[in-house]
Amino acid sequence: MLNYGAVDRVFQALGDSTRRAIVERLSQGSMSVSDLAKPLDITLAAVVQHLQVLEESGLVRTEKVGRVRSCHIQPQGLRVAEDWISARRSLWERRFDRLGELLDGPESPTPSPRKKGSS
Amino acid sequence: MLNYGAVDRVFQALGDSTRRAIVERLSQGSMSVSDLAKPLDITLAAVVQHLQVLEESGLVRTEKVGRVRSCHIQPQGLRVAEDWISARRSLWERRFDRLGELLDGPESPTPSPRKKGSS
Repeated sequence: MLNYGAVDRVFQALGDSTRRAIVERLSQGSMSVSDLAKPLDITLAAVVQHLQVLEESGLVRTEKVGRVRSCHIQPQGLRVAEDWISARRSLWERRFDRLGELLDGPESPTPSPRKKGSS
Repeated sequence: MLNYGAVDRVFQALGDSTRRAIVERLSQGSMSVSDLAKPLDITLAAVVQHLQVLEESGLVRTEKVGRVRSCHIQPQGLRVAEDWISARRSLWERRFDRLGELLDGPESPTPSPRKKGSS
């Protein structure tokens, strides 16, 4: 079952390109907030704000060890978005398949063999 | 290969809850713009604007037949987002698996059976 509040938060979080860049880098390995901020062309305060959104959406987890705050991907957050999309896509594909069957119609039951003696 | 412009457009489009509601309804079947607008608590003009964003992102296709504009899901647009997410997730999972192997170390190759006569 999909939790719609969680779906909303994950897609709102992924809707921003800086936050996607953060997820992209963290998927290659956990790192500190300051290492994460280095290549990003924004202030450390802005990075912290983006991380807060990512944490609230369940995409990222941060933990403070001594003086360093370390950031990690939460794969279950990514799974929420993946499940929503694949459910929509397979719903559409099933409808499309049924439409195909209807268009084929009962006159051309291609996979079943011909009746005996029907020639 | 993922086209990053396409990824940006798809996630920006899916970052809005009204647009996700449109994708959700269209995945259950194609429909006209006015049918699509009925349960949404926004003006027809706003629906048209959202549809424009969805069309530009490749998530939805619309076509005019006579006086009616019909809207359809474009599954390849959904696939763009799905591929981006699953690539990030599997990257992270592979790293996590390697980390597990490193932590297990060469002394405890858990999956292999015990040596004979090692008790």
